[in-house]
This record gives sequence, structure tokens and C-alpha cells, in this order.
Amino acid sequence: MTRFRCAIHIVPRRGILDPQGKAVADALHSLGFADLSDVRVGRHVIVETEAATADAARARITAMCEKLLANPVTEDFEIASVEHA
Amino acid sequence: MTRFRCAIHIVPRRGILDPQGKAVADALHSLGFADLSDVRVGRHVIVETEAATADAARARITAMCEKLLANPVTEDFEIASVEHA
Repeated sequence: MTRFRCAIHIVPRRGILDPQGKAVADALHSLGFADLSDVRVGRHVIVETEAATADAARARITAMCEKLLANPVTEDFEIASVEHA
Repeated sequence: MTRFRCAIHIVPRRGILDPQGKAVADALHSLGFADLSDVRVGRHVIVETEAATADAARARITAMCEKLLANPVTEDFEIASVEHA
């Protein structure tokens, strides 16, 4: 078994209101950053897990996202990287 | 001026307690995912901004992180990508 360090991006689905992103955009505007068109705030989750292969680790991470990490109604997830830890 | 889509990772600094990551790790354990050694939860922020060059966009994003997006005491940030939008 090898230890893998996996990075996951979970972001609000396009077309769904992102109040946290809106609040950040407004705050950046008032700090003088004028040229912003869109801000979206999601989660960046790093999981270290043991698996036989990188593909097995990816499958485990997908199951974790579907069961707990991401809300399937409002969020999209993407496994950004799977690396040897 | 070109529009750039920038992705930022903001993660709790190593050695700093991450209660959200601990809670997620415990929840994954009780769902049967046993082989986890570490879970850390940070933010994944996507900003669309206008700038003359990719380097200028990167400099603006760094300023945004230092002024607002990241907590300099407890968090590290990294600009993951700067792409034409």
C-alpha cells in the first residue's frame, strides 16, 4: 500500500448563487480592486490516504466526495492531483 | 486589457490546528474510510480580473490575498493558475 496525497476542488455549480463569492467581490471592490468580473469561493480539501495504486486512490476520493465532501445538488468536485506523499 | 481567470488555494499553515479538517476526517472514518492519515480543508477561490499581462494579473491577485483573502497569521496561499478567460 502506498500513501497518496490528493487535492480536491469543490466549487459551487455554475448558475447557482454564491453569496460568499459575492461578499468577497464586494469587499475587494471597496479595497480598490475595480476590475473584477466574477469571484467564486469553494473548498480546497487535501486528503492523505493509503491505496494500492493512484487509480485506486482516485476511486476512493471520488467515493468520499460523493458520500460526504461535496453537495451533489449545488456543488461540483474535481480531483486536482494525486501524488505520492 | 485581457481578462484572466485566476485560481487561488488558501490552506491552513502546517502545524496549525485545523478543526474543520479534523471533523471531516472523523466523519470519513465513521463512513468506513479507514486509511486516512491527514485531512486539511482550505479555500479554493476563483477570481476573474482584467490586466495587461499574466504577470500583472498575478501581482494583483497576490495583493488581494495579502489584503483580504488569506489570514497571514494562520494561512498560506498559492496562486494555482492564471489563464485567459
